[in-house]
Amino acid sequence: MSSPLRVTVWNEFRHEKNNPRVAALYPQGIHEALAAPLRAQPDLAVRTATLDEPDHGLSPETLAATDVLIWWGHKAHREVSDDTVAAVRTRVLEGMGLVVLHSGHYSKIFKALMGDTCSLKWRESTDKERLWTVLPSHPIAEGVGPYFELEREEMYGEPFGIPTPDELIFISWFTGGEVFRSGATWRRGHGKIFYFRPGHETYPTYHHATVQRVILNAVRWARPTVCLKDAAPRTEPLEPLPPDPDAAARPTAGHR
Amino acid sequence: MSSPLRVTVWNEFRHEKNNPRVAALYPQGIHEALAAPLRAQPDLAVRTATLDEPDHGLSPETLAATDVLIWWGHKAHREVSDDTVAAVRTRVLEGMGLVVLHSGHYSKIFKALMGDTCSLKWRESTDKERLWTVLPSHPIAEGVGPYFELEREEMYGEPFGIPTPDELIFISWFTGGEVFRSGATWRRGHGKIFYFRPGHETYPTYHHATVQRVILNAVRWARPTVCLKDAAPRTEPLEPLPPDPDAAARPTAGHR
Amino acid sequence: MSSPLRVTVWNEFRHEKNNPRVAALYPQGIHEALAAPLRAQPDLAVRTATLDEPDHGLSPETLAATDVLIWWGHKAHREVSDDTVAAVRTRVLEGMGLVVLHSGHYSKIFKALMGDTCSLKWRESTDKERLWTVLPSHPIAEGVGPYFELEREEMYGEPFGIPTPDELIFISWFTGGEVFRSGATWRRGHGKIFYFRPGHETYPTYHHATVQRVILNAVRWARPTVCLKDAAPRTEPLEPLPPDPDAAARPTAGHR
Amino acid sequence: MSSPLRVTVWNEFRHEKNNPRVAALYPQGIHEALAAPLRAQPDLAVRTATLDEPDHGLSPETLAATDVLIWWGHKAHREVSDDTVAAVRTRVLEGMGLVVLHSGHYSKIFKALMGDTCSLKWRESTDKERLWTVLPSHPIAEGVGPYFELEREEMYGEPFGIPTPDELIFISWFTGGEVFRSGATWRRGHGKIFYFRPGHETYPTYHHATVQRVILNAVRWARPTVCLKDAAPRTEPLEPLPPDPDAAARPTAGHR
Repeated sequence: MSSPLRVTVWNEFRHEKNNPRVAALYPQGIHEALAAPLRAQPDLAVRTATLDEPDHGLSPETLAATDVLIWWGHKAHREVSDDTVAAVRTRVLEGMGLVVLHSGHYSKIFKALMGDTCSLKWRESTDKERLWTVLPSHPIAEGVGPYFELEREEMYGEPFGIPTPDELIFISWFTGGEVFRSGATWRRGHGKIFYFRPGHETYPTYHHATVQRVILNAVRWARPTVCLKDAAPRTEPLEPLPPDPDAAARPTAGHR
Repeated sequence: MSSPLRVTVWNEFRHEKNNPRVAALYPQGIHEALAAPLRAQPDLAVRTATLDEPDHGLSPETLAATDVLIWWGHKAHREVSDDTVAAVRTRVLEGMGLVVLHSGHYSKIFKALMGDTCSLKWRESTDKERLWTVLPSHPIAEGVGPYFELEREEMYGEPFGIPTPDELIFISWFTGGEVFRSGATWRRGHGKIFYFRPGHETYPTYHHATVQRVILNAVRWARPTVCLKDAAPRTEPLEPLPPDPDAAARPTAGHR
Repeated sequence: MSSPLRVTVWNEFRHEKNNPRVAALYPQGIHEALAAPLRAQPDLAVRTATLDEPDHGLSPETLAATDVLIWWGHKAHREVSDDTVAAVRTRVLEGMGLVVLHSGHYSKIFKALMGDTCSLKWRESTDKERLWTVLPSHPIAEGVGPYFELEREEMYGEPFGIPTPDELIFISWFTGGEVFRSGATWRRGHGKIFYFRPGHETYPTYHHATVQRVILNAVRWARPTVCLKDAAPRTEPLEPLPPDPDAAARPTAGHR
Repeated sequence: MSSPLRVTVWNEFRHEKNNPRVAALYPQGIHEALAAPLRAQPDLAVRTATLDEPDHGLSPETLAATDVLIWWGHKAHREVSDDTVAAVRTRVLEGMGLVVLHSGHYSKIFKALMGDTCSLKWRESTDKERLWTVLPSHPIAEGVGPYFELEREEMYGEPFGIPTPDELIFISWFTGGEVFRSGATWRRGHGKIFYFRPGHETYPTYHHATVQRVILNAVRWARPTVCLKDAAPRTEPLEPLPPDPDAAARPTAGHR
């Protein structure tokens, strides 16, 4: 039997403390709502972490023991320390999967990995969202069907300032007339990244079965597949080279 | 008659001052060797900038007056100020083209825009490099032919830690047995980015006619094509929405 | 002064003869409605071709003198001869641009170049279509703005059975609740291909200024950029090889 | 316990009968050399099929019972019937995986699915091939390491006339000075396709452990992930539409 996939669910966990409406929807916090259906899976080992814990709950030990990290943040992106962002970035490049949710599009870690504006248009109102599956053969879309609906959600609209996705899986339709690339993947280093749009804190989105299914699918898809230690960058030739009259003047392996 | 395309050639300009071999190859600096063939083009207006000038030669006025920026750096990446990197990044996202050369793969600006390791393997020896054109219909490959050769160059080898390129134009063969994706493009924001591998400071690479042709092609390809001012992100619906009982409790446009 | 870009507008030209409603919208045929705004451009040389002409209007001479071909077909895809499809395919692979409109998604030529189902969902009713620009820096989107609307159009819905586009430029929103990737590009051989969704025959879509602008942009974008004659596939080594004891038994250049 | 993955290995099986050198390398045929290591996997059910069997060994029943098809062909591509090609294409679009080997780049089925020239340069001589892993986190590269070598192989050189791969996994170096994109993936319909370069009939390539590992990885990667029956293309609106005064004149669902 293989060892479990280790998932850490990170949540800003501020709205739940300050906004009774959010607290009513997510009494234990968004992180617990996200973690609950994952904990029901026997092959997953799930923990949570939040902004106001020491190291934002992401100590070196925790990160080293995380295979896939889920990220929910919104109004306190700036409070996440640059050191934590750098540590998470390093782990993603080493192979840790990353699932970024909703307003996490503007988190420091997502912007650092995308290298783009990550900007979009938005409206919090009475829009319905309908997510269309445009890549039904992708494992993240498994069990989703042609589309699914969220009766009310915050609207996110194009243009979404992201690099060309490696894979575009979902596109959203909104009542108010907008569209959005709401599920997309990228690789960075050895790590796999999935961005998934739904989940504004004032709606019960993370209690929706299909949303939970997509996140579970994404966690499994994003699991690390290699643990290569990169070789020394200064490398010897594999084929014979002509003699090098300047060899003595060359830099040695440590020069950069 | 249209206004000229404004090109700024940025060079670290350190090796030329400290290494007689480099000085012999590039007596006015790599930036001037890069600028000379561009200056011969009537549709281009070319200036240079170097690390040790105030603002690294990239004042807000200069950046605002630059359509395409060429970047060569190597041993002093860390000396480029974070403020300058942020300013260049902003301009790229607004639409400025960026052509990153050779060891610029490890520059702060390239890493910030790629969001990846940008690592590779290397060897400074007696390798020949042969660059194969794999996308001959791309404007950057115009006039290049099936391949071109650099009799001696530093070797760069895969794996190259970059996001999937939007377009892969050249792949290099090296005598010592390695290959490398040596010409590739990405979009970030409204800006177009081209990475081009050749140009180690101890070889006369930037005097090579085909290398000069590729860089000229890249400058024209990377020119800005839009100057959109992004609209306010908080957006009104284009279609009728149901009434919103919670409207009074909604955040206003300035909340993020 | 450079020679003009030679554009051929191909139209099935059947609905206009049989359906008074279509005839009222396009009295000279859809091809003439498409050609008229292109003819106003001094750098373009425009001709038309239709299904019921000899060789479907696409003789070898016409194809050889076409830089960019525009394709509109719907109910008579099967009547296009396989020879003509093969000839158009060959020209695209040699570098001719191809702009495929609306129901041309099911044309033989588009399916042959995509290698995919090219299937979609559809409804002819009272939908409004709003096309969002998701890649505003692309030359095909120049002058379009964040979105444009067609008051009534046939609905096309995802999943659209296409290979991953090289570039996704427009996504459509429809009143009835669907979305669609309505502007996308691919390269095949040396040729560039743009698919553009709008243009059902029972709506006045091709009289819409922005639709005309997109098609003009696409024609300019799709122009051939190389006229390489491919070298002989059997190729001599560029570097020394070990002696070949089996050389006498090797196939010669003509074996495939 | 889940049901086995059903693999069919297709081989032209002509060289082995006519060329003693090939017969010595592959006495039971290339198909049996490919099938043997797959048969050692308990989760796979493997059969073979060859050109000269009835239906080329690919009856409707066999295709319906195949999850992943491996394809090796070379000098008899034209003898594969168009009906068989159409049947295989349909199955791929429905979700069957396809692994195309070496000279299969010019098979009817690969060309039909790519929609491109699929042309390349080649030389049968004494080249060594070294395949570099450029996407080490991809499951097809699992266990391969940074590179592997084939002491002698036929050379294939760029430009390779393929659509932009969804994923580029391997790039080859050849002694004679060429490079080649030797491992790449695409999606068509619900099916996943992997092209893998090595395997000329006059070399013992398919007895090489790493080559066998890549093919095994590819088979597992290419397994079908959905069995969606596509809905009727004529679709009802999900949101209210304005009344349609022309409804009576509309085409019904069967019109295309």
